[in-house]
Amino acid sequence: MRKVAIVGAGMTPFAEHFALGIKDLLPMAFAECAASVDKGMAKNDIDAVWFGAMGTTDGFPSGILADTLGMQDIPVTHVENSCATGNDAVRNALYGIASGAADVALVMGADKLREVATKDMLWGWEATTRDMAWDYPLGLVAPAGFALHVRRYLYESPATREHLAMIAVKNHRNAVENPKARLRFEITVEQALAAPIVADPFGVYDCAPQSDGAAALVLAAEDVVDRFTDRPVWVRGVGLGMDSVMYPHKPDMTTFPATVRAAKRAFGMAGLTPSDVDVAEVHDYFTGIELISYEDLGFAERFGAHKLVEAEVTSMGGALPVNPSGGLKAKGHPPGATGVAQCVELFGQLRGEAVNQVDGARIGLAHNIGGPTAVAAVTILEGAGAHG
Amino acid sequence: MRKVAIVGAGMTPFAEHFALGIKDLLPMAFAECAASVDKGMAKNDIDAVWFGAMGTTDGFPSGILADTLGMQDIPVTHVENSCATGNDAVRNALYGIASGAADVALVMGADKLREVATKDMLWGWEATTRDMAWDYPLGLVAPAGFALHVRRYLYESPATREHLAMIAVKNHRNAVENPKARLRFEITVEQALAAPIVADPFGVYDCAPQSDGAAALVLAAEDVVDRFTDRPVWVRGVGLGMDSVMYPHKPDMTTFPATVRAAKRAFGMAGLTPSDVDVAEVHDYFTGIELISYEDLGFAERFGAHKLVEAEVTSMGGALPVNPSGGLKAKGHPPGATGVAQCVELFGQLRGEAVNQVDGARIGLAHNIGGPTAVAAVTILEGAGAHG
Repeated sequence: MRKVAIVGAGMTPFAEHFALGIKDLLPMAFAECAASVDKGMAKNDIDAVWFGAMGTTDGFPSGILADTLGMQDIPVTHVENSCATGNDAVRNALYGIASGAADVALVMGADKLREVATKDMLWGWEATTRDMAWDYPLGLVAPAGFALHVRRYLYESPATREHLAMIAVKNHRNAVENPKARLRFEITVEQALAAPIVADPFGVYDCAPQSDGAAALVLAAEDVVDRFTDRPVWVRGVGLGMDSVMYPHKPDMTTFPATVRAAKRAFGMAGLTPSDVDVAEVHDYFTGIELISYEDLGFAERFGAHKLVEAEVTSMGGALPVNPSGGLKAKGHPPGATGVAQCVELFGQLRGEAVNQVDGARIGLAHNIGGPTAVAAVTILEGAGAHG
Repeated sequence: MRKVAIVGAGMTPFAEHFALGIKDLLPMAFAECAASVDKGMAKNDIDAVWFGAMGTTDGFPSGILADTLGMQDIPVTHVENSCATGNDAVRNALYGIASGAADVALVMGADKLREVATKDMLWGWEATTRDMAWDYPLGLVAPAGFALHVRRYLYESPATREHLAMIAVKNHRNAVENPKARLRFEITVEQALAAPIVADPFGVYDCAPQSDGAAALVLAAEDVVDRFTDRPVWVRGVGLGMDSVMYPHKPDMTTFPATVRAAKRAFGMAGLTPSDVDVAEVHDYFTGIELISYEDLGFAERFGAHKLVEAEVTSMGGALPVNPSGGLKAKGHPPGATGVAQCVELFGQLRGEAVNQVDGARIGLAHNIGGPTAVAAVTILEGAGAHG
């Protein structure tokens, strides 16, 4: 398989973009991405596009992208995989390039969730991520579903609500200096614990804000990377994993098999292990997901995730900073864009250009989980080992 | 790029499956597909799945597929590209195999349009295929949009409504013996012309019935094809093409640039020309689309498509039979499944096993167009040259 690298990356701020549509957000992210390519890039350098999106407020996703960016002469595939959409778009683009069908691919992700035309569209959108016969009509919207997992995890492991709060505090702190983040303010553990409950054990500060935004990456085959940059970030591994959709079919609520499967595939492809990872963007749609994911990704032993939090291993300055961007928790979560934006952050980290730079970061990992924990995607990137 | 072949194919009948959901239709199509693999196939032979679907009546598409088929240990990507969804899923699976990431891939397509939970879901679904700011709110649903093209085509070319009717008659006739088709009855030109008008120039018999159904293909790399069959059908070319979404941005309504682009890419990859094609499944969502597509696919000269109809070139027994399955027109149209089902038909044709067998067919072409003519996909297949 020929090697594939990221040579450019950009994104819009994640926010409540009430005045902007997908048609506005896509060009904003693309422009920043194109400008980030060291030796420049023209539209006609792009052979194919993979577009991750869930919402459709502006209409036909692939066509809207082609139209808005003036790319009618380039094939555009729309990939949807619930909250794992972004990193699955990266995975499919990698296959397109590795196969030889394309030398250069644009990967974009976008969603606009803070404004849908009707209440029915919001419910319709939520329905695309769950089981429509059982779980969803019974009320298992996203916070409720994930709360079932984390409630059980807190029961079986030594972790407590304080550990969830410490993750919220960490990710809020990381977002303060990130101009792309939505919740750029610090909070305290006390505030997090005292916040109104959304779905026990999640208070308001345990939940990521659904947001509007777009992100973009340019991927290039090893044969042509030199045309674009001397500082590529290589895509070392991609992995997608599935699990049962319905909660009654999940025998152990304290682990996410989809993540375990995705990570195993991505690390296998990369020839790396969890201990090789220097920085990670982990899917913290709810704080407890980040905690459980430490274990599923191989960063912590079973029921030992809270120790990483207590020892500040995953804070800035720790051995494995997680969500230096602020994560979904404080940066925001437009699902189609989220995975792509994680790679945008890691592109900066692995080139020594990030806002919260992890010193010497060489290997980065991006992780999504969604579709009631029925799908996860992991992408592993490698840079030259930047020193900020 | 390593070669990829189809080694198995199956589908449900396309119909009004009021009593069945996607969860029922997927296993039906998969079972027929698995049984069609000459030397047998087990689920754990499959490395990855690409699933084409637009509707979501049963919930999260990728997860529902994995759950329903017991494939939680296999990655599943959901591809959506309006009416070109099916053949774009084939294209992405081909890249996955050609890249070396998978040796064997399952491609499925499914949709259930005859029954959605609420009116709002239907409108929401339609909205995913058009421009939501302008065209769709102004009433440009599918029949109205395509009628604009065909009305203009009839004005500029020598073709008449009689030619549209002749295509309807041909495709209805082909469907009679196809047990998978929905409208298995013959009609006359007079009936077609006298039918109530849906959107001028389309009468009822010019329109394909939106339907419920699923279809499945097994694709394998050249290295492993022999494990499954001695009679593979090779995927020689795939192509995806885009065009502007909004009607005010389409300077010439009498041609579909998306098809021209998709065909150019697929023929280029295959190293073949339109004159090499022995049998084709062409996207006849409305009769006039089949007519215009003869030209865009290179089967007829500009404004000369009607001559093929008059000379019965595209009828059974002609030099280039089109839609021997009955086409969307008489077989039915569940968008996600349609492109996959076209390849199911061609798999039979190129192995000499089709209901309406085209004698000696060696090269087959499948074609989709949709998303207000903003996307098209073409797949070119090659068999051993079967004699029925």
